[in-house]
Amino acid sequence: MGTSGKIIKCKAAIAWEAGKSLSIEEVEVAPPKSHEVRVKIIATGICGTDDHVLTGSFPKVDYPVIPGHEGAGIVESIGEGVTCVKPGDKVIPLCLPQCGECSSCLKWNTNCCLKTHLCNPQNLMPDKTSRFTCKGKQIHHFLWISTFSEYTVMPDSTVVRIDDAAPLDKVCLFGCGFSTGYGAAINTAQVTPGSTCAVFGLGGVGLSVVMGCQAAGASRIIGIDINKEKFGKAKELGATECLDPRDYEKPIQEVLIEMTGHGVDYAFEVVGCLDTLTAALASCHMGCGVCVMVGVPPTDSRLSFDPLLLFTGRTLKGSFIGGWKMKDSIPQLVSSYMEEELKTDVLITHTLSFSEISEGFNLLRSGKSVRIVLLF
Amino acid sequence: MGTSGKIIKCKAAIAWEAGKSLSIEEVEVAPPKSHEVRVKIIATGICGTDDHVLTGSFPKVDYPVIPGHEGAGIVESIGEGVTCVKPGDKVIPLCLPQCGECSSCLKWNTNCCLKTHLCNPQNLMPDKTSRFTCKGKQIHHFLWISTFSEYTVMPDSTVVRIDDAAPLDKVCLFGCGFSTGYGAAINTAQVTPGSTCAVFGLGGVGLSVVMGCQAAGASRIIGIDINKEKFGKAKELGATECLDPRDYEKPIQEVLIEMTGHGVDYAFEVVGCLDTLTAALASCHMGCGVCVMVGVPPTDSRLSFDPLLLFTGRTLKGSFIGGWKMKDSIPQLVSSYMEEELKTDVLITHTLSFSEISEGFNLLRSGKSVRIVLLF
Repeated sequence: MGTSGKIIKCKAAIAWEAGKSLSIEEVEVAPPKSHEVRVKIIATGICGTDDHVLTGSFPKVDYPVIPGHEGAGIVESIGEGVTCVKPGDKVIPLCLPQCGECSSCLKWNTNCCLKTHLCNPQNLMPDKTSRFTCKGKQIHHFLWISTFSEYTVMPDSTVVRIDDAAPLDKVCLFGCGFSTGYGAAINTAQVTPGSTCAVFGLGGVGLSVVMGCQAAGASRIIGIDINKEKFGKAKELGATECLDPRDYEKPIQEVLIEMTGHGVDYAFEVVGCLDTLTAALASCHMGCGVCVMVGVPPTDSRLSFDPLLLFTGRTLKGSFIGGWKMKDSIPQLVSSYMEEELKTDVLITHTLSFSEISEGFNLLRSGKSVRIVLLF
Repeated sequence: MGTSGKIIKCKAAIAWEAGKSLSIEEVEVAPPKSHEVRVKIIATGICGTDDHVLTGSFPKVDYPVIPGHEGAGIVESIGEGVTCVKPGDKVIPLCLPQCGECSSCLKWNTNCCLKTHLCNPQNLMPDKTSRFTCKGKQIHHFLWISTFSEYTVMPDSTVVRIDDAAPLDKVCLFGCGFSTGYGAAINTAQVTPGSTCAVFGLGGVGLSVVMGCQAAGASRIIGIDINKEKFGKAKELGATECLDPRDYEKPIQEVLIEMTGHGVDYAFEVVGCLDTLTAALASCHMGCGVCVMVGVPPTDSRLSFDPLLLFTGRTLKGSFIGGWKMKDSIPQLVSSYMEEELKTDVLITHTLSFSEISEGFNLLRSGKSVRIVLLF
């Protein structure tokens, strides 16, 4: 524990301003204060949300910032009052806190802890200071966890211990992408056995939705994407058929309604496109179909549709990180992975070194990857 | 049974064209054909939907038409193959069929029978002919049940027997208004004990929502209306407090979020106004609030809102006639009324004779009535 209490110098990827590429820099990482934890990140995924930070389309970010929110690592040191983890523990940082005290955490039916960045900025630690400096400048945190740094500090409400045997280069996906998609099917939609599902968008999160639908016992899982290269993996993971909307003259919702008789039981929008969301809603059975918004819609956008789509009994709902109360659930999901019940390795198409982070973002934008993991 | 098999001459209220007042006429009512039932209507409520027929804003109506869809009566005669009722039975006509055979009727989780007028026109009997004539002209049916006629014919999928002792001048409300509101709370929202509810619009249906919230054990029921005269009855029926949005400078959703800490658990829109629907959605708890659309939105309108309202876990859903499978449920609701568990009489503010139907519509439009019942 030679580093405990000291500033650590290490590599991190900084977005100096919106619209610029990341640059790898040497940063100083201050020790954790009260109720904070310093973690040595071993592996981190790259998620579309990180790319939104780079382009400036993610709301309420302060630059310069260290992005990254899908990591796994080992506790290096803890601040005063931390009891949930100890140095040496394998952990996953949580992109959605579970403070355990707010009105949401006390409700059984929501994971939307009121410490989410949507309620309170997470660009600085709770005491309104940063633990990161670079070239004498304060660097902002991202979602309190900034996993694009070899060492990072986070509040103890945003970190959870996992199985000591878990391979960190694999289970980092549980920090965001896999859990978001899988939980949308399991928790938010509560897909029922024998049901028919449609998944719009077959990236890493969409494929995780497919896995959730299959785990829940759906008998028909229709994958939809405009990139046919994604169909093979979707079928491997449980899709019973795949469609490219561009192969049809009719709108995709009409195609789906014809294919299924009267619409699907559950539809998932995993693209973040409002037209796709409306199509997903219209694809649902008029009397009982449930449409789940998983993709993040554009900032300051307006969703607009004929309210009669809802009138006869359709449901439209959002899924926030798959509906998981993350402190409670992530260790259980990792355990299921260790027991080979969740086969998430197939989602990882590229493993690169941290120094190749820009190549990783290029791969992400090319649409040729599913999930990219960076190793420090 | 002296009339069985014969044409019956009786009074009915006809809307000759959109935008004209109803006129009471003598009509001929043909006997029921196969799988049809002729009913002597004893009492009928007046619902806002009937007014939409008069103004021409209800979709897919063919004129001339006999409106009315909230009635109660006695079976006069039955056509071949009818087994669910027999002459002399007290019945309630169903404004939403339950055919028992379509994919919706076979699902447990929807009442949206595919014989609804939204899928198939109900302006003529299933054989595409009318049972009504007046002055030599064919008159159209409305929702297959046309209760503004002393005698009316309907398919056997749209009529159900009720308790022989039920007072028809009271239980006619179970044919639409009461069931729609009460079921929105009980079935669609599934309001939980101890929860906080907001009901936007305190007309007859809104008050029935209040009753449903109270029956489900909600601990706080906030009624909202721009007509303070409605607050007394709302409180009598279970509202714990009432608000007039015009008393506040802030938008009503902000007022409700402040009043409740983080928003209500359930919000109901019972006005049919899209701005109110958006306010209701925004009034809900960001992580788990459920907003139910009960009011009928304007035809060809667009609902438009920031999709981030859904992102953190809110749910928006429609309630169709309260979610009841009507053949199964209406007799049970009437039984609950007979056992004094449902005190719906308080909703009836005016009882008029059928010849006063135009006065009834004037009362409806004045906002001074809750529910008006006409007696033949």
